[in-house]
Amino acid sequence: MRVLGVDPGLTRCGIGVVEGVAGRPLAMLGVGVVRTPADADIGHRLVAIERGMEEWLDEHRPELVAVERVFSQHNVRTVMGTAQASAVAMLCASRRGIPVALHTPSEVKAAVTGSGRADKAQVGAMVTRILRLAAPPRPADAADALALAICHIWRAPAHNRLQQAVAQHALKGRTA
Amino acid sequence: MRVLGVDPGLTRCGIGVVEGVAGRPLAMLGVGVVRTPADADIGHRLVAIERGMEEWLDEHRPELVAVERVFSQHNVRTVMGTAQASAVAMLCASRRGIPVALHTPSEVKAAVTGSGRADKAQVGAMVTRILRLAAPPRPADAADALALAICHIWRAPAHNRLQQAVAQHALKGRTA
Repeated sequence: MRVLGVDPGLTRCGIGVVEGVAGRPLAMLGVGVVRTPADADIGHRLVAIERGMEEWLDEHRPELVAVERVFSQHNVRTVMGTAQASAVAMLCASRRGIPVALHTPSEVKAAVTGSGRADKAQVGAMVTRILRLAAPPRPADAADALALAICHIWRAPAHNRLQQAVAQHALKGRTA
Repeated sequence: MRVLGVDPGLTRCGIGVVEGVAGRPLAMLGVGVVRTPADADIGHRLVAIERGMEEWLDEHRPELVAVERVFSQHNVRTVMGTAQASAVAMLCASRRGIPVALHTPSEVKAAVTGSGRADKAQVGAMVTRILRLAAPPRPADAADALALAICHIWRAPAHNRLQQAVAQHALKGRTA
């Protein structure tokens, strides 16, 4: 299956596309970051993120979009921006009938490193190894987006089938 | 000027349209709520809010969209949903080149009641009086959306002109 992972953020929104199935080697199809200027109006930043997401979805046609689940125990300002960027990512996917899965940062870290408390360097190192890359993807947001996609592919094969069925059903309901 | 106010929320997103200028009687052009089912997938809820916003924007063609500025000192879960719904509202406006203004809940309360700590009933009563309505708009989210629009019209005539110039400039840049 092909999964597009999103590490949401207003300043840097990491995006990574991974293809494969659990138990077999995975392949990276693309990785990058959608950036928006910190001094721009919030509405225009969200429009830029939407445009970036649309381009990634057009190019890679993922079967599922995996987004980091946002918590608010972190820095207040950052969290609001993260929640807003994640909303745009989820909106773009759902509008196309692509199912959305949410994974917490600790689920992602545990999936790729074996520890839910791994640091960024460890996540980057494991993403590099798992996808057989020449070097860790930069910035960290890009590596995190790939880790999200890997986490999804490894964690929930049954869950994916269920979600796809639900999304197909919802899409049929809308277009009927 | 015509302002569409948005009191963002996933379960109930209040929307109210007010026309007029500071110092003269204001007119309500429309009020309502976009609802999404609490048991629906978050992506589908955001798509429903987008669709609702588009309908309101198509029908009323506001010159500005005023959205409640979200803070995270409240309940964690509610705040994330509020931030996500507000992102969709801002995205829909900015995509059309409509300027977005943010006002805090206390700015809105102070504008319509004279006190930044007024309760919902007081806001509802003043919205009813200011717009010469037969009864307070229900639910409270709808009244709050009207209060946001009133607040914007009363607070910042110079600010509005500046924002419109900036938005026009941005729009020209995009379509050029």
